[in-house]
Amino acid sequence: MALNTSYTVKLPDWLVDELPGLPSHIGSHAQQMALVNRLADRNWREGNGGPFAAIVVDHVTGELISVGVNVVLSTGISSGHAEVTALGLAQARLGKWDLGGDRDLALVVNWRPCIQCYGATMWSGVRHLVVAGDGPELEQLTGFDEGPMVADWAEQFERRGIEVVQDVGREEALAVYRAYGISNALVYNARGQS
Amino acid sequence: MALNTSYTVKLPDWLVDELPGLPSHIGSHAQQMALVNRLADRNWREGNGGPFAAIVVDHVTGELISVGVNVVLSTGISSGHAEVTALGLAQARLGKWDLGGDRDLALVVNWRPCIQCYGATMWSGVRHLVVAGDGPELEQLTGFDEGPMVADWAEQFERRGIEVVQDVGREEALAVYRAYGISNALVYNARGQS
Repeated sequence: MALNTSYTVKLPDWLVDELPGLPSHIGSHAQQMALVNRLADRNWREGNGGPFAAIVVDHVTGELISVGVNVVLSTGISSGHAEVTALGLAQARLGKWDLGGDRDLALVVNWRPCIQCYGATMWSGVRHLVVAGDGPELEQLTGFDEGPMVADWAEQFERRGIEVVQDVGREEALAVYRAYGISNALVYNARGQS
Repeated sequence: MALNTSYTVKLPDWLVDELPGLPSHIGSHAQQMALVNRLADRNWREGNGGPFAAIVVDHVTGELISVGVNVVLSTGISSGHAEVTALGLAQARLGKWDLGGDRDLALVVNWRPCIQCYGATMWSGVRHLVVAGDGPELEQLTGFDEGPMVADWAEQFERRGIEVVQDVGREEALAVYRAYGISNALVYNARGQS
Protein backbone atom coordinates (compact mmCIF):
# COMPACT_ATOMS: atom_id res chain seq x y z
CA MET A 1 0.00 0.00 0.00
CA ALA A 2 1.45 3.38 -0.99
CA LEU A 3 2.41 5.84 1.72
CA ASN A 4 0.05 8.76 2.30
CA THR A 5 1.15 12.20 1.14
CA SER A 6 -1.44 14.38 2.89
CA TYR A 7 -4.03 14.43 5.62
CA THR A 8 -6.99 16.73 6.10
CA VAL A 9 -8.63 18.05 9.25
CA LYS A 10 -12.21 19.13 8.60
CA LEU A 11 -15.13 20.37 10.61
CA PRO A 12 -18.15 18.12 11.19
CA ASP A 13 -21.21 18.71 9.02
CA TRP A 14 -23.34 20.20 11.79
CA LEU A 15 -20.73 22.89 12.38
CA VAL A 16 -20.26 23.57 8.67
CA ASP A 17 -24.03 24.11 8.55
CA GLU A 18 -23.83 26.51 11.51
CA LEU A 19 -21.05 28.71 10.15
CA PRO A 20 -23.11 30.95 7.84
CA GLY A 21 -25.38 31.84 10.77
CA LEU A 22 -22.60 32.94 13.10
CA PRO A 23 -21.99 36.68 13.59
CA SER A 24 -19.09 38.12 11.58
CA HIS A 25 -17.89 39.97 14.69
CA ILE A 26 -18.16 39.05 18.39
CA GLY A 27 -17.17 41.94 20.59
CA SER A 28 -16.49 40.76 24.11
CA HIS A 29 -14.52 37.88 25.59
CA ALA A 30 -17.68 36.83 27.44
CA GLN A 31 -19.67 36.60 24.19
CA GLN A 32 -16.79 34.83 22.45
CA MET A 33 -16.57 32.24 25.22
CA ALA A 34 -20.34 31.77 25.26
CA LEU A 35 -20.09 30.60 21.63
CA VAL A 36 -17.11 28.36 22.48
CA ASN A 37 -18.90 26.76 25.40
CA ARG A 38 -22.03 26.17 23.32
CA LEU A 39 -20.09 24.51 20.48
CA ALA A 40 -18.04 22.43 22.95
CA ASP A 41 -21.23 21.07 24.46
CA ARG A 42 -22.76 20.21 21.11
CA ASN A 43 -19.51 18.64 19.86
CA TRP A 44 -19.39 15.74 22.30
CA ARG A 45 -23.12 15.17 22.03
CA GLU A 46 -22.69 14.84 18.24
CA GLY A 47 -19.91 12.30 18.82
CA ASN A 48 -17.12 14.14 16.99
CA GLY A 49 -14.66 14.21 19.89
CA GLY A 50 -14.20 15.68 23.35
CA PRO A 51 -16.15 18.61 24.83
CA PHE A 52 -13.82 21.26 23.45
CA ALA A 53 -14.13 24.18 21.05
CA ALA A 54 -11.94 27.13 20.15
CA ILE A 55 -12.19 30.23 17.97
CA VAL A 56 -9.69 32.68 16.56
CA VAL A 57 -10.84 36.29 16.65
CA ASP A 58 -9.38 39.69 15.89
CA HIS A 59 -8.49 41.14 19.28
CA VAL A 60 -9.37 44.68 18.24
CA THR A 61 -12.47 44.32 16.09
CA GLY A 62 -13.83 40.98 17.31
CA GLU A 63 -13.92 39.65 13.73
CA LEU A 64 -14.42 35.89 13.71
CA ILE A 65 -11.48 34.35 11.81
CA SER A 66 -12.03 30.63 12.42
CA VAL A 67 -14.06 28.14 14.44
CA GLY A 68 -12.74 24.76 15.61
CA VAL A 69 -13.88 21.83 17.69
CA ASN A 70 -12.20 18.61 18.78
CA VAL A 71 -12.47 16.33 15.74
CA VAL A 72 -10.29 13.43 16.87
CA LEU A 73 -13.09 10.89 16.56
CA SER A 74 -14.66 12.25 13.36
CA THR A 75 -11.37 12.69 11.45
CA GLY A 76 -9.19 9.97 13.00
CA ILE A 77 -6.37 12.51 13.43
CA SER A 78 -5.21 12.62 17.05
CA SER A 79 -3.77 16.15 16.79
CA GLY A 80 -7.21 17.46 15.79
CA HIS A 81 -7.95 19.11 19.10
CA ALA A 82 -10.08 22.26 19.09
CA GLU A 83 -7.09 24.62 19.33
CA VAL A 84 -5.04 22.96 16.57
CA THR A 85 -8.14 22.87 14.37
CA ALA A 86 -9.05 26.53 14.92
CA LEU A 87 -5.44 27.66 14.43
CA GLY A 88 -5.03 25.57 11.27
CA LEU A 89 -8.29 26.88 9.81
CA ALA A 90 -7.25 30.47 10.57
CA GLN A 91 -3.88 29.88 8.91
CA ALA A 92 -5.51 28.27 5.87
CA ARG A 93 -7.85 31.24 5.56
CA LEU A 94 -5.16 33.90 5.95
CA GLY A 95 -2.66 31.92 3.86
CA LYS A 96 0.23 32.00 6.33
CA TRP A 97 1.46 30.26 9.44
CA ASP A 98 2.20 33.42 11.44
CA LEU A 99 -1.06 34.69 12.91
CA GLY A 100 0.77 37.55 14.59
CA GLY A 101 2.76 39.03 11.75
CA ASP A 102 0.38 41.81 10.78
CA ARG A 103 -2.72 41.01 12.84
CA ASP A 104 -3.54 41.14 16.52
CA LEU A 105 -5.36 37.82 16.99
CA ALA A 106 -6.65 35.90 19.99
CA LEU A 107 -7.37 32.21 20.55
CA VAL A 108 -10.42 31.66 22.76
CA VAL A 109 -10.80 28.17 24.23
CA ASN A 110 -12.84 26.54 26.99
CA TRP A 111 -9.92 25.62 29.31
CA ARG A 112 -6.18 25.81 29.58
CA PRO A 113 -4.85 23.88 26.55
CA CYS A 114 -3.44 20.36 26.95
CA ILE A 115 0.30 19.99 26.57
CA GLN A 116 0.09 19.54 22.78
CA CYS A 117 -2.09 22.59 22.27
CA TYR A 118 -0.01 24.60 24.72
CA GLY A 119 2.81 24.32 22.22
CA ALA A 120 0.54 24.71 19.20
CA THR A 121 -0.72 28.01 20.61
CA MET A 122 2.82 29.15 21.39
CA TRP A 123 4.04 28.57 17.81
CA SER A 124 0.96 29.98 16.03
CA GLY A 125 1.68 33.69 16.34
CA VAL A 126 -1.51 34.58 18.23
CA ARG A 127 -0.90 37.38 20.71
CA HIS A 128 -3.65 36.56 23.19
CA LEU A 129 -5.00 33.38 24.77
CA VAL A 130 -8.40 33.59 26.47
CA VAL A 131 -9.36 30.57 28.60
CA ALA A 132 -12.38 29.69 30.71
CA GLY A 133 -10.12 28.42 33.48
CA ASP A 134 -7.23 26.20 34.43
CA GLY A 135 -6.69 23.75 37.27
CA PRO A 136 -7.60 20.11 37.84
CA GLU A 137 -11.37 20.41 37.39
CA LEU A 138 -11.25 19.53 33.69
CA GLU A 139 -9.35 16.29 34.27
CA GLN A 140 -11.43 15.42 37.33
CA LEU A 141 -14.77 15.96 35.61
CA THR A 142 -13.98 14.44 32.20
CA GLY A 143 -11.26 11.87 32.84
CA PHE A 144 -9.03 13.35 30.11
CA ASP A 145 -5.25 13.38 30.64
CA GLU A 146 -3.99 16.89 29.85
CA GLY A 147 -0.31 15.96 30.06
CA PRO A 148 2.63 17.21 32.12
CA MET A 149 2.59 21.04 32.21
CA VAL A 150 5.19 23.36 33.73
CA ALA A 151 3.94 25.26 36.79
CA ASP A 152 4.61 28.71 35.27
CA TRP A 153 2.72 27.96 32.04
CA ALA A 154 1.05 31.39 31.84
CA GLU A 155 4.29 33.27 32.55
CA GLN A 156 5.94 31.29 29.76
CA PHE A 157 3.30 32.65 27.38
CA GLU A 158 3.70 36.21 28.64
CA ARG A 159 7.48 35.97 28.27
CA ARG A 160 6.92 35.20 24.57
CA GLY A 161 4.58 38.14 24.08
CA ILE A 162 1.31 36.22 24.43
CA GLU A 163 -1.19 37.70 26.87
CA VAL A 164 -3.22 35.21 28.92
CA VAL A 165 -6.76 36.11 30.00
CA GLN A 166 -8.27 33.66 32.48
CA ASP A 167 -11.61 32.71 34.02
CA VAL A 168 -13.93 33.89 31.24
CA GLY A 169 -17.16 31.86 31.25
CA ARG A 170 -15.73 29.46 33.80
CA GLU A 171 -18.98 28.20 35.30
CA GLU A 172 -20.48 27.48 31.89
CA ALA A 173 -17.33 25.57 30.91
CA LEU A 174 -17.49 23.48 34.07
CA ALA A 175 -21.15 22.72 33.38
CA VAL A 176 -20.18 21.28 29.97
CA TYR A 177 -17.47 19.07 31.52
CA ARG A 178 -19.84 17.94 34.23
CA ALA A 179 -22.46 16.90 31.68
CA TYR A 180 -19.84 15.07 29.63
CA GLY A 181 -18.46 13.29 32.68
CA ILE A 182 -21.84 12.09 33.84
CA SER A 183 -22.66 10.84 30.36
CA ASN A 184 -19.36 9.00 30.12
CA ALA A 185 -19.88 7.37 33.46
CA LEU A 186 -23.26 6.06 32.32
CA VAL A 187 -21.79 4.75 29.09
CA TYR A 188 -18.99 3.07 31.00
CA ASN A 189 -21.34 1.46 33.45
CA ALA A 190 -23.58 0.28 30.68
CA ARG A 191 -20.67 -1.33 28.86
CA GLY A 192 -19.27 -2.75 32.05
CA GLN A 193 -22.56 -4.43 32.80
CA SER A 194 -23.13 -5.82 29.35
CA MET B 1 -15.19 35.98 3.31
CA ALA B 2 -16.58 32.60 4.35
CA LEU B 3 -14.93 30.74 7.21
CA ASN B 4 -12.74 27.78 6.28
CA THR B 5 -14.05 24.30 6.99
CA SER B 6 -10.88 22.25 6.48
CA TYR B 7 -7.12 22.46 6.23
CA THR B 8 -4.68 20.03 4.67
CA VAL B 9 -1.12 19.16 5.62
CA LYS B 10 0.78 17.69 2.68
CA LEU B 11 4.30 16.60 1.91
CA PRO B 12 6.50 18.68 -0.40
CA ASP B 13 6.86 17.46 -3.99
CA TRP B 14 10.46 16.29 -3.63
CA LEU B 15 9.44 13.98 -0.80
CA VAL B 16 6.37 12.71 -2.66
CA ASP B 17 8.75 11.85 -5.50
CA GLU B 18 11.07 10.01 -3.09
CA LEU B 19 8.42 7.85 -1.43
CA PRO B 20 8.18 5.09 -4.07
CA GLY B 21 11.93 4.55 -3.82
CA LEU B 22 12.02 4.08 -0.06
CA PRO B 23 12.30 0.54 1.35
CA SER B 24 9.03 -0.97 2.55
CA HIS B 25 10.76 -2.15 5.74
CA ILE B 26 13.67 -0.64 7.69
CA GLY B 27 14.92 -3.03 10.30
CA SER B 28 17.09 -1.21 12.84
CA HIS B 29 16.72 2.03 14.77
CA ALA B 30 20.07 3.13 13.33
CA GLN B 31 18.86 2.64 9.75
CA GLN B 32 15.55 4.32 10.54
CA MET B 33 17.32 7.34 11.99
CA ALA B 34 19.72 7.50 9.06
CA LEU B 35 16.70 8.05 6.79
CA VAL B 36 15.25 10.62 9.20
CA ASN B 37 18.51 12.57 9.39
CA ARG B 38 18.89 12.55 5.60
CA LEU B 39 15.34 13.82 5.03
CA ALA B 40 15.73 16.46 7.76
CA ASP B 41 18.82 17.81 6.05
CA ARG B 42 17.19 17.94 2.65
CA ASN B 43 14.02 19.53 4.06
CA TRP B 44 15.55 22.80 5.21
CA ARG B 45 17.68 23.02 2.08
CA GLU B 46 14.51 22.74 -0.01
CA GLY B 47 12.95 25.56 2.03
CA ASN B 48 9.92 23.65 3.33
CA GLY B 49 10.53 24.26 7.02
CA GLY B 50 12.99 23.46 9.80
CA PRO B 51 15.61 20.69 9.72
CA PHE B 52 13.29 18.03 11.10
CA ALA B 53 11.90 14.72 9.86
CA ALA B 54 10.04 11.83 11.47
CA ILE B 55 8.79 8.41 10.45
CA VAL B 56 6.30 5.97 11.90
CA VAL B 57 7.42 2.34 11.69
CA ASP B 58 6.18 -1.01 12.91
CA HIS B 59 8.29 -1.76 15.96
CA VAL B 60 8.35 -5.49 15.25
CA THR B 61 8.69 -5.75 11.47
CA GLY B 62 10.21 -2.37 10.62
CA GLU B 63 7.45 -1.70 8.10
CA LEU B 64 7.45 1.95 7.06
CA ILE B 65 4.00 3.37 7.84
CA SER B 66 4.51 7.08 7.17
CA VAL B 67 7.15 9.71 6.45
CA GLY B 68 6.90 13.33 7.61
CA VAL B 69 8.99 16.47 7.54
CA ASN B 70 8.47 19.96 8.96
CA VAL B 71 6.14 21.64 6.46
CA VAL B 72 5.37 24.86 8.33
CA LEU B 73 6.74 27.10 5.57
CA SER B 74 5.42 25.07 2.61
CA THR B 75 1.89 24.58 3.99
CA GLY B 76 1.45 27.69 6.14
CA ILE B 77 0.17 25.50 9.00
CA SER B 78 2.18 26.11 12.17
CA SER B 79 1.34 22.71 13.70
CA GLY B 80 2.89 20.96 10.69
CA HIS B 81 6.03 19.86 12.48
CA ALA B 82 7.64 16.59 11.39
CA GLU B 83 6.10 14.56 14.21
CA VAL B 84 2.54 15.88 13.77
CA THR B 85 2.85 15.35 10.01
CA ALA B 86 4.16 11.78 10.30
CA LEU B 87 1.56 10.86 12.93
CA GLY B 88 -1.28 12.41 10.90
CA LEU B 89 -0.19 10.60 7.74
CA ALA B 90 0.01 7.29 9.63
CA GLN B 91 -3.47 7.86 11.06
CA ALA B 92 -4.86 8.79 7.64
CA ARG B 93 -3.36 5.63 6.16
CA LEU B 94 -4.58 3.31 8.92
CA GLY B 95 -7.94 5.07 9.18
CA LYS B 96 -7.91 5.66 12.92
CA TRP B 97 -6.49 8.02 15.52
CA ASP B 98 -5.19 5.32 17.87
CA LEU B 99 -1.87 4.06 16.52
CA GLY B 100 -1.53 1.69 19.47
CA GLY B 101 -4.86 -0.11 19.46
CA ASP B 102 -3.83 -3.20 17.53
CA ARG B 103 -0.34 -2.29 16.30
CA ASP B 104 3.01 -1.84 18.00
CA LEU B 105 4.26 1.35 16.33
CA ALA B 106 7.22 3.64 16.92
CA LEU B 107 7.81 7.30 16.08
CA VAL B 108 11.41 7.97 15.05
CA VAL B 109 12.49 11.64 15.08
CA ASN B 110 15.77 13.54 14.97
CA TRP B 111 15.60 15.07 18.47
CA ARG B 112 13.40 15.24 21.53
CA PRO B 113 10.09 16.72 20.32
CA CYS B 114 9.22 20.35 21.03
CA ILE B 115 6.49 20.95 23.57
CA GLN B 116 3.70 20.72 20.95
CA CYS B 117 4.96 17.46 19.51
CA TYR B 118 5.64 16.08 22.98
CA GLY B 119 1.89 16.17 23.52
CA ALA B 120 1.09 15.07 19.96
CA THR B 121 3.24 11.96 20.45
CA MET B 122 1.65 11.26 23.82
CA TRP B 123 -1.89 11.32 22.41
CA SER B 124 -1.17 9.38 19.21
CA GLY B 125 -1.10 5.86 20.58
CA VAL B 126 2.47 5.04 19.49
CA ARG B 127 4.20 2.78 22.00
CA HIS B 128 7.79 3.78 21.30
CA LEU B 129 9.60 7.07 20.72
CA VAL B 130 13.10 6.88 19.23
CA VAL B 131 15.11 10.13 19.33
CA ALA B 132 18.58 11.12 18.19
CA GLY B 133 19.13 13.04 21.41
CA ASP B 134 17.79 15.61 23.84
CA GLY B 135 19.41 18.53 25.60
CA PRO B 136 20.15 22.14 24.65
CA GLU B 137 22.25 21.46 21.53
CA LEU B 138 19.27 21.70 19.18
CA GLU B 139 18.24 25.13 20.43
CA GLN B 140 21.83 26.35 20.60
CA LEU B 141 22.71 25.26 17.07
CA THR B 142 19.49 26.22 15.28
CA GLY B 143 18.01 29.08 17.31
CA PHE B 144 14.62 27.32 17.56
CA ASP B 145 12.61 27.69 20.76
CA GLU B 146 11.47 24.20 21.84
CA GLY B 147 9.18 25.45 24.59
CA PRO B 148 8.98 24.81 28.35
CA MET B 149 9.38 21.08 29.04
CA VAL B 150 9.05 19.27 32.36
CA ALA B 151 12.32 17.83 33.66
CA ASP B 152 11.01 14.26 33.80
CA TRP B 153 9.72 14.26 30.21
CA ALA B 154 10.92 10.73 29.41
CA GLU B 155 9.53 9.26 32.65
CA GLN B 156 6.17 10.87 31.81
CA PHE B 157 6.16 8.90 28.55
CA GLU B 158 7.15 5.66 30.25
CA ARG B 159 4.43 6.15 32.85
CA ARG B 160 1.91 6.22 29.98
CA GLY B 161 3.28 3.05 28.40
CA ILE B 162 5.51 4.73 25.81
CA GLU B 163 9.10 3.49 25.68
CA VAL B 164 11.76 6.13 24.99
CA VAL B 165 14.95 5.14 23.10
CA GLN B 166 17.60 7.86 23.11
CA ASP B 167 20.86 8.80 21.36
CA VAL B 168 20.32 6.97 18.06
CA GLY B 169 22.24 8.71 15.25
CA ARG B 170 23.06 11.62 17.53
CA GLU B 171 26.19 12.87 15.79
CA GLU B 172 24.51 12.85 12.38
CA ALA B 173 21.58 14.81 13.83
CA LEU B 174 23.91 17.40 15.32
CA ALA B 175 25.67 17.74 11.97
CA VAL B 176 22.33 18.65 10.34
CA TYR B 177 21.59 21.28 13.00
CA ARG B 178 25.07 22.70 12.69
CA ALA B 179 24.74 23.06 8.91
CA TYR B 180 21.33 24.69 9.32
CA GLY B 181 22.60 27.07 11.98
CA ILE B 182 25.54 28.24 9.93
CA SER B 183 23.31 28.78 6.92
CA ASN B 184 20.81 30.75 8.98
CA ALA B 185 23.54 32.94 10.41
CA LEU B 186 24.65 33.84 6.88
CA VAL B 187 21.10 34.64 5.85
CA TYR B 188 20.64 36.78 8.93
CA ASN B 189 23.87 38.67 8.38
CA ALA B 190 23.02 39.27 4.75
CA ARG B 191 19.66 40.77 5.65
CA GLY B 192 21.17 42.78 8.46
CA GLN B 193 23.66 44.33 6.08
CA SER B 194 21.20 45.13 3.32
